[in-house]
Amino acid sequence: MPRIRIAQAQINPIVGDLAYNLELVKQGMETARQAGADLVTFPELCLCGYPPEDLLLKPRFLEDVRRALELAVEASRGVTAVVGFADQQGEEVFNAAALIHQGRLAGVYHKMELPNYGVFDEKRYFSPGRGCMLLELAGVRVMLTICEDLWVPGCKVETCARTVGVGLTLNISASPFHAGKLSLRRRILADYARRTGTTVCYTNLVGGQDELVFDGGSLVVDPRGELVACSHRFQPDFLVSDLELPAAEEAPPVTAPDRLLELGPGRGAAGSPLPPGVSNGLAPQPGPVEEVYQALVLGTGDYVRKNGFHKVVLGLSGGIDSSLTAAVAVDALGAENVVGVTMPSQYTSRETKSDAEILAQNLGITLHTVPIQRILSAYLEEMGPVLGPGELGVVAENLQARIRGNILMGLSNRFGWLVLTTGNKSETAVGYCTLYGDMAGGFAVIKDVPKTLVYELSHFVNQKAGREIIPHSVLVRPPTAELRPDQKDEDTLPPYELLDPILKSYVEEDKVLDDIAATPEEAELVARVVHMVDLNEYKRRQAPPGIKITPKAFGKDRRLPITNHYRPGMIP
Amino acid sequence: MPRIRIAQAQINPIVGDLAYNLELVKQGMETARQAGADLVTFPELCLCGYPPEDLLLKPRFLEDVRRALELAVEASRGVTAVVGFADQQGEEVFNAAALIHQGRLAGVYHKMELPNYGVFDEKRYFSPGRGCMLLELAGVRVMLTICEDLWVPGCKVETCARTVGVGLTLNISASPFHAGKLSLRRRILADYARRTGTTVCYTNLVGGQDELVFDGGSLVVDPRGELVACSHRFQPDFLVSDLELPAAEEAPPVTAPDRLLELGPGRGAAGSPLPPGVSNGLAPQPGPVEEVYQALVLGTGDYVRKNGFHKVVLGLSGGIDSSLTAAVAVDALGAENVVGVTMPSQYTSRETKSDAEILAQNLGITLHTVPIQRILSAYLEEMGPVLGPGELGVVAENLQARIRGNILMGLSNRFGWLVLTTGNKSETAVGYCTLYGDMAGGFAVIKDVPKTLVYELSHFVNQKAGREIIPHSVLVRPPTAELRPDQKDEDTLPPYELLDPILKSYVEEDKVLDDIAATPEEAELVARVVHMVDLNEYKRRQAPPGIKITPKAFGKDRRLPITNHYRPGMIP
Repeated sequence: MPRIRIAQAQINPIVGDLAYNLELVKQGMETARQAGADLVTFPELCLCGYPPEDLLLKPRFLEDVRRALELAVEASRGVTAVVGFADQQGEEVFNAAALIHQGRLAGVYHKMELPNYGVFDEKRYFSPGRGCMLLELAGVRVMLTICEDLWVPGCKVETCARTVGVGLTLNISASPFHAGKLSLRRRILADYARRTGTTVCYTNLVGGQDELVFDGGSLVVDPRGELVACSHRFQPDFLVSDLELPAAEEAPPVTAPDRLLELGPGRGAAGSPLPPGVSNGLAPQPGPVEEVYQALVLGTGDYVRKNGFHKVVLGLSGGIDSSLTAAVAVDALGAENVVGVTMPSQYTSRETKSDAEILAQNLGITLHTVPIQRILSAYLEEMGPVLGPGELGVVAENLQARIRGNILMGLSNRFGWLVLTTGNKSETAVGYCTLYGDMAGGFAVIKDVPKTLVYELSHFVNQKAGREIIPHSVLVRPPTAELRPDQKDEDTLPPYELLDPILKSYVEEDKVLDDIAATPEEAELVARVVHMVDLNEYKRRQAPPGIKITPKAFGKDRRLPITNHYRPGMIP
Repeated sequence: MPRIRIAQAQINPIVGDLAYNLELVKQGMETARQAGADLVTFPELCLCGYPPEDLLLKPRFLEDVRRALELAVEASRGVTAVVGFADQQGEEVFNAAALIHQGRLAGVYHKMELPNYGVFDEKRYFSPGRGCMLLELAGVRVMLTICEDLWVPGCKVETCARTVGVGLTLNISASPFHAGKLSLRRRILADYARRTGTTVCYTNLVGGQDELVFDGGSLVVDPRGELVACSHRFQPDFLVSDLELPAAEEAPPVTAPDRLLELGPGRGAAGSPLPPGVSNGLAPQPGPVEEVYQALVLGTGDYVRKNGFHKVVLGLSGGIDSSLTAAVAVDALGAENVVGVTMPSQYTSRETKSDAEILAQNLGITLHTVPIQRILSAYLEEMGPVLGPGELGVVAENLQARIRGNILMGLSNRFGWLVLTTGNKSETAVGYCTLYGDMAGGFAVIKDVPKTLVYELSHFVNQKAGREIIPHSVLVRPPTAELRPDQKDEDTLPPYELLDPILKSYVEEDKVLDDIAATPEEAELVARVVHMVDLNEYKRRQAPPGIKITPKAFGKDRRLPITNHYRPGMIP
């Protein structure tokens, strides 16, 4: 059986930064050259970054991408590479893989299955490809595929693979993270490998892009579905695998619209020693809580850096949400680049204020204090004649949150710090948050993290450090917004242990009341929660972007109208 | 030639309000019955409201829609009707037209061409239909189509129409407004009528739904492309037309996958007098500025009402943007439901404050005054130690805007008023606005209106009233944010007469620098503007919804990444 050396360049491109992305591809080709790889694969659309969204509607952008590809081809002497790019052909644009072979563009494959669900809008931009692409390299028949092509059982790609016989399937991908996604991916790829009797070599993007984190996790599975190699996750990596694969000699012919390219004998370096700095075999994998934490760290760091910021500022209330957010920020950017602000009011207890101080000390970050009581008084005095007499209730509560938002934004304007917000998914879902108040900021780190998982992640922070980072008292104190005397979240919301499973069923799984609630008492609670979620779509619409870590995040993953009168069963 | 009486029910449904929408359909069927119509058409997806977005992913929603359709069928004795709904069939969902005939569901047509560009995401939800539907009614061969089916020259629908011969084409639609859209629609429909030799009867939705306004403008064009009838725009209407059409007798047979339904002789009432309250013939049409104004009035009124609000509040600065917004609000909701607030600072001139008062008087609305100087001082005192010494510049400017935002939100919390924001498209595009400041609110009335059009609309307001509503001094004063002494917009921005055409080219037409600028001096200006637009995507992402009135609005019409390093020509 022929042996082939395959390299997988798990790179972190920046959307729209064609020059930078081209440089990453050139570096990857150079590493592949040094490693003697027969072929190196780069992720889907890596020359543009993913997802480029409506940049794809700009003709000049597509021309510039083409020019970047030409420069990649020029730099490819001695290398065979598969590089993702957007390919304009006449009126159509394709999600494409360039097959670059030793200084020339040997062929271009067009993705055939275009995802248009969840966060994906590929049918907005791309036409589907009209044929498969195969190559023969180093005596092995290889098939080129892009992401979704392997996720649709029975599609044209699979039919072709079964018909013509494929030793190795290359899949270049830009598959965003959610908790548990890697297991799902492995299962999909292993099933495909078994169904078609091929080895699958899957190369994923890594890095944060607005609300998405690409976790990498590039891998190789053999025809029995066994994992042969996998890369480090949440960081760039360069994975090299020597694979023994069936000879192409007796494979059936390939007929149009599918195409076969003959690329010759390859480098013949399989089995030789690897240069330093490249990965090989099975990299260690994070556990289920750690992978979410790493996603938050990567997503936060990349959003801040790729948008030209260096430092961040956040309000530290002494609560668990801001504590976790601060810990993530420190891991993403370094303690010297994180600034905490505590903004006490008359309702701030001594304990929470002291917890904020201990946290800042544990993390080694600067902490400023700006009291808000006098500012609040100034508002209430000036607004008094219009507000009229009577209890102010939520007016005063929201004003406090908005004063804090203003203070943080003022510091942002003064010093160029990005404001991180600290709201979690549970409160964002039910609207237990103040628009322009605690929701004010540039990036919402834990926006998609349910409160119960906030606790798990916070315990993980301390466990990882081997010492108390987030004070014990923060972990055990009942959650409170501290906007009125003795306020507790549970005065307004059901306990998070009850709330979170309901939110998961309703938001992520689109279940309806009858399927969520088992008893009439539960039904009442579920109805109340569902109503709060529906009612607060307008707030979420003005929330800052934040990192998707569940199968369905708020944002482009879940597109509901604000004006929406639907109630299940409203038709008798 | 047979004569047929066709009714078009231009209704204003509410997304998700299946019970209400069903009621509208029942009422329309009753009116059609009284008018002796052979057939009545209702808009696309009118049972769900359009666009239902991810409600379509909820299985229970689709079941409830089906139930609403069944109730419509039950109520249809004596009537033939075409009703838009979402049709779940196994794993697939179709954008469908129910053909309801005298108490039974005679057939269902599935839309074949699914738009997935601009604001449309139909491929996210729907499978394309697999065949056309024709009927024979009152001796005429009629074809059922849905919206986009007529917008794609040479598509299957058109091919079928040419092959089998169609006397009348019914098109039910949910086509959102932008300035000039009606002319575009008429041209598309007239071209289709001429190409296929058919009369086209086009029924559009009316009403506001979040960022979209459906303008109605239902119409009939004859096979020469001439306009035969058209409805009133921006309001519900019921249009009845008696049409003389070619006999179906000699038309060629219809073969699978297309279908033909025989519906019999019809009511035979064509030519008889019409009951009162229905429209007939050519309704008067608004001019180019008036149509935008009406779109703003309808969009604002429907957003406020459909979201359960009665009153709105807005800041009146004495500038033209807030003046126009207030005028629109009064036309949409009545003067008694609009509250103005003037929030002077030390930079507020006597003239602008007095103009705000005159405007409020002219409109007959309540005006409150809340000065912000002392609140600003409280912020600056408390933040002083952290801000440090030196000029505060934009810090103090943004704080003023945010204090005003907080005051309005406080009043909203106190009295349940919806806050209207007053930013125009020009400043939203270049980020000349303050996040959580003047951008704080529930609905952004003129968000998609370029500043130059703000002036035209303001003149129109006075002209329509036949007296000065917006004070003359507001119309002639150079625009200013009044956040520092003697500030003028033109200190920061190019004159709006230069800025707006650049924004149109870049934002709406996706042109690049070289295509926009004719000279090197222009190139410098264009580059600066383009950079400002790109840089401020993050602000727009947190803006409230507002009414689309241009071919490409910010929002789901234009989906650009926040993290985006693209600069045209960055690859040498």
